[in-house]
Amino acid sequence: MPYFDAASSAPLHPVARQALLASLDEGWADPTRLYREGRRARMLLDAAREAAAEAVGCRADELVFASSGTRAVHAGIAGALGGRHRIGRHLIVSAVEHSSVLHAADAHEAGGGSVAQVEVDRQGRVTPASYADALRPDTALACLQSANHEVGTEQPVAEVASVCRESGVPLLVDAAQSLGWGPVQGDWSLLTASAHKWGGPSGVGLLVVRKGVRFVSQGPADERESGRAAGFENLPGIVAAAASLRAVRAEAEQEAVRLRELTERIRVRVPRSVPDVEVVGDPERRLPGIVTFSCLYVDGETLLHELDREGFSVSSGSSCTSSTLTPSHVLKAMGVLSEGNVRVSLPMGTPEEDVERFLAVLPGAVAEVREKLGAPVAAATVRQDDALVVDALGRRCPIPVIELAKVIGDVPVGGTVRVLSDDEAARLDIPAWCEMRGQEYVGEEPADRGSAYVVRRIS
Amino acid sequence: MPYFDAASSAPLHPVARQALLASLDEGWADPTRLYREGRRARMLLDAAREAAAEAVGCRADELVFASSGTRAVHAGIAGALGGRHRIGRHLIVSAVEHSSVLHAADAHEAGGGSVAQVEVDRQGRVTPASYADALRPDTALACLQSANHEVGTEQPVAEVASVCRESGVPLLVDAAQSLGWGPVQGDWSLLTASAHKWGGPSGVGLLVVRKGVRFVSQGPADERESGRAAGFENLPGIVAAAASLRAVRAEAEQEAVRLRELTERIRVRVPRSVPDVEVVGDPERRLPGIVTFSCLYVDGETLLHELDREGFSVSSGSSCTSSTLTPSHVLKAMGVLSEGNVRVSLPMGTPEEDVERFLAVLPGAVAEVREKLGAPVAAATVRQDDALVVDALGRRCPIPVIELAKVIGDVPVGGTVRVLSDDEAARLDIPAWCEMRGQEYVGEEPADRGSAYVVRRIS
Repeated sequence: MPYFDAASSAPLHPVARQALLASLDEGWADPTRLYREGRRARMLLDAAREAAAEAVGCRADELVFASSGTRAVHAGIAGALGGRHRIGRHLIVSAVEHSSVLHAADAHEAGGGSVAQVEVDRQGRVTPASYADALRPDTALACLQSANHEVGTEQPVAEVASVCRESGVPLLVDAAQSLGWGPVQGDWSLLTASAHKWGGPSGVGLLVVRKGVRFVSQGPADERESGRAAGFENLPGIVAAAASLRAVRAEAEQEAVRLRELTERIRVRVPRSVPDVEVVGDPERRLPGIVTFSCLYVDGETLLHELDREGFSVSSGSSCTSSTLTPSHVLKAMGVLSEGNVRVSLPMGTPEEDVERFLAVLPGAVAEVREKLGAPVAAATVRQDDALVVDALGRRCPIPVIELAKVIGDVPVGGTVRVLSDDEAARLDIPAWCEMRGQEYVGEEPADRGSAYVVRRIS
Repeated sequence: MPYFDAASSAPLHPVARQALLASLDEGWADPTRLYREGRRARMLLDAAREAAAEAVGCRADELVFASSGTRAVHAGIAGALGGRHRIGRHLIVSAVEHSSVLHAADAHEAGGGSVAQVEVDRQGRVTPASYADALRPDTALACLQSANHEVGTEQPVAEVASVCRESGVPLLVDAAQSLGWGPVQGDWSLLTASAHKWGGPSGVGLLVVRKGVRFVSQGPADERESGRAAGFENLPGIVAAAASLRAVRAEAEQEAVRLRELTERIRVRVPRSVPDVEVVGDPERRLPGIVTFSCLYVDGETLLHELDREGFSVSSGSSCTSSTLTPSHVLKAMGVLSEGNVRVSLPMGTPEEDVERFLAVLPGAVAEVREKLGAPVAAATVRQDDALVVDALGRRCPIPVIELAKVIGDVPVGGTVRVLSDDEAARLDIPAWCEMRGQEYVGEEPADRGSAYVVRRIS
């Protein structure tokens, strides 16, 4: 039963399991106590900190353990902003950051701060120049992920770090997706990561604050973890996290080559075997194990269920699978198709056969979903002032795009069709469909309900 | 090697270990995902929540898992205050709460809120009347521990809860020390607890918010745990926490009787076998496993080292063992002797022989420390305007009290002696010595350095 959602959470690495078991017996006491059980716990904690710091490439006293990657991000951003509140309250983030960063930015804005979102290109990448443009005299902090969690695109962290450094602004790097593969290059100031992404246990995050970076922890603190992560340490988890990071790193170089070849197969072969697919994210500068594609005329949730029935666990940024009814903010920022979106993220050690079987199964699964959705259609098509109108109001993705595809043949070349839709995904997916199909996306117009998306037939 | 510091952290319960192992294999995936690994994780999480809620005596949807008891307290206090900020910003806590509560109160005060500390009696207990007195029209929240972590005294939670309920003020109960022994009685509104205190793993706290209690999470949140505890769930830890809580509860009634008898032996026999000892905390209404006493003329850190050499792990609220150079805020609020303070907190299952051996070893350990300290004394004793003056400036506890005890014989009955000291512990320990010795504590006077503590010889 192949699990292809490592970017969400990786299965526990065998070394993590062993280390966790060993430290359950040795590491349950309070490491601040002076008796032997406390001293033993302190030794384990110190050794784990040394090991993690070595993997990060920082000093041990720059690294603290938080209770999750999310907590590390929240505490890191709040502390860095707190340390520079006299400079100003301007925060820069990229548009494709992990939700933990964006939630911290929202909280900062709700508290009276200001936030600039740096846009990305169609591959999901920022440019150092766009960070340079966003910097202001009152910028307290900039944030950039090392690589994107949904499409795998690597960010120019080192270049952005030097742009920030020139202006004296610290850069916080969310390295959750990449730290297992190697240290983050460049002159960054803060770094966060999450152990369960590299095969460590859940319940452990890393927060690194370089010496010299002004940092004032916000909210109630205690004497643990340099006052940066309150609460009794999850010591067995910490020990397992550090041990597995070291183990994963030892395998990383070789495994990166192997997984990159496997994801490349998916990148190349899915568009050949499945019609109307867009592979998204950078084809070269990307994480080894992640590949993401979107399938026209497919409801992401149904496709995930089909794949689950075939034994494959993958995730999706489609709005169809999310409780928010909006497509993933990453796909949105990239301006790529979101319907029928599938993210495949291979855990280390994924056997080649599993990927081959996925490639064999996918075309049938997509075809089945398309057949189900294509049959009964309730949307009404009417002529209005000589222009074709597709009324897809109240219909969820991918129906609006399916209806558009059905009527485009009836539109004379040079003529237009208006798709009425109140589904948030249509705003992303109708232009994406036009680009994939070689038709012209004229634009969006307000309508009584939802919007009218105007498309001109070119060919 | 007897470990007698369960109130700090209990050794992992065998059931916690088993449950943790089992869920490492089943519970590493993201419980929000729809594929089988996610559904399995969701089932484990739901079952753990049901089990924990049953043990607490609440609905499952009232309980969320936080990453520690401290985080549960911080999030609970901030959210309850946030939910009632229109009512006001007044917070009531007892003077003997756990530091996590007091740190949250400090943060609230730093943010412009106001805090009232309710005093305790010499046993460490608050009265419902004192909470009633502290309530104001702008009181947003009151906090009270179920039982004290340093001396074991149980608080009148149900009575305080009804006093608060009458004024429409929610009561948050920190049940960290008692939840393993049984549910918290009374009509409380919020409750927090910490798994590693009952033999669960570290990295898991409980936060319960009763339906109908206004609660607005503060800071960045995500969709996990009802928006009350952000970050990927520590699922194996959560499963182990819930399983061990159930297991500990099954043994609690019988074990409470047994441990209460063992701590009673310590309460009764230590003052008989060790001279100049004060047992502190309520003799009756107390937790089964905790007993605390203070030894005159003893340096707590040295005594802990002596006991550690003999194989006993205990903790101390003496200033001598703390990095802050002040005695425990609990002993201070109770107004009891802090020097030579020892807290014995027995884990469930502690064998009788271990307690007997402790009782056998303690008198020798105390005598040895006293002998070491009693020998060379540098404090100068001078007569000043016909009154005896002991200059203990620059000397740490227990030296000022030792010097006082040495000279009291030279003071004529009815005459006074002034002890000059700049040690924070003297403020607590000199009056406590007077009470134990039947001498009169006249009061504290300002001095060029530190304070002068004036004592009249009565007998």
